[in-house]
Amino acid sequence: MSNTDNKQTQSWIHIPAESDFTIHNFPYGVCEKSNGLIACCTRLGDTVINLNQLLKLGYLKAVALPENVFQGTTLNEFISQGRHKWKALRSRLITIFDKNNLELQHNIQDRESICTPITDVKMLIPIKVGDYTDFYSSKEHATNVGKMFRPDEPPLKPNWTHMPIAYHGRSSTIVTTKEKIRRPLGQIVNHESHVPELAFTKALDIELEMGFITSDANLIGEPVPVNKAHEFIFGMVLLNDWSARDIQKWEYVPLGPFLGKNFATSISPWIVTMDALENFKTDLPVKNHTPLEYLKKHNDFTYDINLEVDIISSGLSTTIIKSNYKYLYWSISQQLAHHTINGCKVNAGDLMGSGTISGSDQGSFGSLLELSWAGSKLIKLDDGTTRTYLEDMDIVVMRGKCERDGIRIGFGELSNQIISGTPMPDSSSKD
Amino acid sequence: MSNTDNKQTQSWIHIPAESDFTIHNFPYGVCEKSNGLIACCTRLGDTVINLNQLLKLGYLKAVALPENVFQGTTLNEFISQGRHKWKALRSRLITIFDKNNLELQHNIQDRESICTPITDVKMLIPIKVGDYTDFYSSKEHATNVGKMFRPDEPPLKPNWTHMPIAYHGRSSTIVTTKEKIRRPLGQIVNHESHVPELAFTKALDIELEMGFITSDANLIGEPVPVNKAHEFIFGMVLLNDWSARDIQKWEYVPLGPFLGKNFATSISPWIVTMDALENFKTDLPVKNHTPLEYLKKHNDFTYDINLEVDIISSGLSTTIIKSNYKYLYWSISQQLAHHTINGCKVNAGDLMGSGTISGSDQGSFGSLLELSWAGSKLIKLDDGTTRTYLEDMDIVVMRGKCERDGIRIGFGELSNQIISGTPMPDSSSKD
Repeated sequence: MSNTDNKQTQSWIHIPAESDFTIHNFPYGVCEKSNGLIACCTRLGDTVINLNQLLKLGYLKAVALPENVFQGTTLNEFISQGRHKWKALRSRLITIFDKNNLELQHNIQDRESICTPITDVKMLIPIKVGDYTDFYSSKEHATNVGKMFRPDEPPLKPNWTHMPIAYHGRSSTIVTTKEKIRRPLGQIVNHESHVPELAFTKALDIELEMGFITSDANLIGEPVPVNKAHEFIFGMVLLNDWSARDIQKWEYVPLGPFLGKNFATSISPWIVTMDALENFKTDLPVKNHTPLEYLKKHNDFTYDINLEVDIISSGLSTTIIKSNYKYLYWSISQQLAHHTINGCKVNAGDLMGSGTISGSDQGSFGSLLELSWAGSKLIKLDDGTTRTYLEDMDIVVMRGKCERDGIRIGFGELSNQIISGTPMPDSSSKD
Repeated sequence: MSNTDNKQTQSWIHIPAESDFTIHNFPYGVCEKSNGLIACCTRLGDTVINLNQLLKLGYLKAVALPENVFQGTTLNEFISQGRHKWKALRSRLITIFDKNNLELQHNIQDRESICTPITDVKMLIPIKVGDYTDFYSSKEHATNVGKMFRPDEPPLKPNWTHMPIAYHGRSSTIVTTKEKIRRPLGQIVNHESHVPELAFTKALDIELEMGFITSDANLIGEPVPVNKAHEFIFGMVLLNDWSARDIQKWEYVPLGPFLGKNFATSISPWIVTMDALENFKTDLPVKNHTPLEYLKKHNDFTYDINLEVDIISSGLSTTIIKSNYKYLYWSISQQLAHHTINGCKVNAGDLMGSGTISGSDQGSFGSLLELSWAGSKLIKLDDGTTRTYLEDMDIVVMRGKCERDGIRIGFGELSNQIISGTPMPDSSSKD
C-alpha cells in the first residue's frame, strides 16, 4: 500500500458503496458541461472535480504545476509533466478531499465552481493519441486465433514466446464511451463464389483489452531499459479493439490487420493511474522460458484487475465474459522495453493496447471469435436470443475493477452501441 | 497544362538551369533560419520564400487566408484550408513571382524580409503527421518479396490484385532530409544456433517510396468515394521506408512489420502539390482484372515521376536505382478510397506511403533486399566497394523529377546518413 493511501481515509464527498471512484482512485478524464465548456477533471463517487478550476483557485500550489497545464481539451500537457508531478498531484488530491480537511470543504463558493455531478457532464476522449500500438500479449488468445485462422500450422508462431508481438493501429478512429460504432463496409470473400465482394461485415466483434498511456519516454534512437519503463507509464484504460473478422481474414496477409480493425477503437474515459493500481500488483504467469536480457525486469509484476463484458440486447444485460488482466503473458514494462529496443520514439499520449485478454477457460475468452469458436457455437443472451457476432443495436459494456484488503477502485464503464452501416458511396459522380 | 502554368512564364528570381524549383513547382516546406526562427515557406530556384511574411505584408490578400495560417511550425493549418485555397495561393504565387509583376520585385525592403537563400536555412519536417499508413502497391515489389520470404508459396497473396494492401506505420519516427539514421537493435535469429539474439541489424535497407499528404477528408464512418478522393490529396513527397530485414523477418508473422520498420521513416522536406504534378499525369498500368466498383475511378491516372537513388560511399556517389512512380499498380485515388471504405477517418497531415516502387527490370528494384536478392548478389559501388545491405557512414540520396514539353519540376533531395547503433541499454539498474 502506498503511503498516501490509507484504507481508513474517507472523503467529505459522498461516495456510493459500490462506486469505482473511491478516494483510492482519482482517475483523470476530460468532460464537457452542458454549456459546452470542456475541462480536465478527476472524480470522486459521482462528483466530477474540475482540475483547472482547482489550480486557478490556488488549491494546487504545493504541486507547482504550470498554470496552463489543465487549460487544454486533453490531458497530454499534464502527462508530459512526468512521474514526480503525477505523484504530487495525487497526494494533494487525497489531502484536499479527506474528510478531516476543511480548506475546500468549507468554501461553498469554490466547491460550487469545482464540483459538478457526473450526470451533468459528457465524458470526452481524455487524450490526443499520437501513435497507437496494439500488442498481442495473451498466450491463450494468440493460441485460439492461430487454431482458427491457421488450422494446419502450430497455433503459436515461433516468435511469440520470445517477444511481445505488436502492430500499429490507427489513432484517428479512437473514440470513447457512449459513441456509436457503425458497422463497416469492406471486401469480404463470398462463401459460394469464393470471390471478394463489397459488403457490410457479418462478423463484427469486440476484443476485450486494456491500454496504457505513456509520457515522453525517450529520444529517437534511444531504447528505454526494461527496469526504467514503468516510470514512463501514466495510467490505464479499458479498450475495445472492434474487429470485423471477415474483412480481417481476407486482407491480413502478409502485412497484418488494417481495415478489419481501423474503423474504431474505443477506450474508457477515465485513466486510472499506475499509482492507484499500485495496491493491486500481482505476479506474472510463469513463462515457458527465459526471455532475452533486455526483457528481464527485476521483480516484474502485473495487475489483478477483474474484467467483465456485457451485451445489452432488448434492454436486458448478459455478462458474456469474466476475465482478468493478470492472465497476460508479457508485462507493460516488457512491452515498452521491446517497443523501444530499436530506438522507436514514444511520446506523451501514446496508447498501447494489451491485445485481447483471454484466460484458459471459455468464459474468459476475450472476443466473440473465440466465444463462438469462429461462428460455430451460439452464445446465449438473457433476452432469449443468441449471437455469434454482434447485431445492430447491441450495446457492449466493458468494466474493470480491483479489490484487495478493503480497498477498491475501478475504471467505470466503456459502453458503445452498434449502428447499421452507411450505404455504399456513389461512385458514379465525376470529379 | 493547367491554365495558370504557362511554360513561357519566367520569374524575376534567378532559377538555375537544372533546378527542381521552377515557377511551375511552388512546393511547400518549413525551414529554420540560423537565428532559430521557424517559417512556413515555398521555394523558387535557390531562394526560400517566407509565406507568413508574404501574408503579413499584404501580398496574399486575394487568397483570403486566416491570418494565423502560416504562424505555426507545420503546414497542417494551411492543408486544412482545402483545395480551393491551395489553388488560389498557387495561382497568386505564380503571379507575384512572374518577371512582369513589379509589386514585390521592386520593393527591396519587403523582398529582404521575404526571401532567404536556401543555404541560410535548415529544412524541417513540414507536417505534424497524425497517422501514417504504408501501402504495398507495386506488384513487382510484392512479387519479389513473396519469392524471397515465402519461396514455397505463390509470391503474390490472393488478395493483392483485389485491393491496395496496406498497414499502419509509426508517426513518431518520421524524419526529414539530413537527419541521421541510427542502426537499430533488435531480435535476430542466429543462423547457426537458430535462436534469436539481441543484435544490431546486419540487413539495414532502404525502400524507395513516395508518399501523399491528405487534408481532412471525412468523418468517422463515412467512406470517401473514389471519384472524390483526389480532392483531399494535398501533395507528394519522396519517402524512404528504412527497414531492418533480419528483424522484420523474425517478427512479422502474423501481424505484420513492426520494429523492423518503425525506427525511422524519412520524407523529403518539400511537398510538391498535386496542382504542380497535374502536368505530369499518365496512364496507370493495365490491370489483370477489373476491381470492385468502389475502386473504379473514371479516367483514373497516375504520375510520371522519375526516381533515382544513390549511395554515397567514401565521398563517391553511385546511382543504384532508376525507377518511376508510374510503375505502381494502384492509384492514389484507389488507395484513399480503399482506406476509407470502412469509415476510417483521414485528417489533414496524414501521410500515405506508396510502398516500395519497383519496376520490372533489376535496375529499377526499389530496395537492397531486391537488388541483392536477399543478400545473395553483390551491388558494386563506384568507390570499388560492394554492398548487400547498408554500412555505417553510407549516405542514401533519393531524387524525383518530372519533365514534359519543356516544363520541369522536382522534389529536391532526400539525403540521410547511417550511423552506428547505440550500445544496449543497461538493464542491471533497479527502478
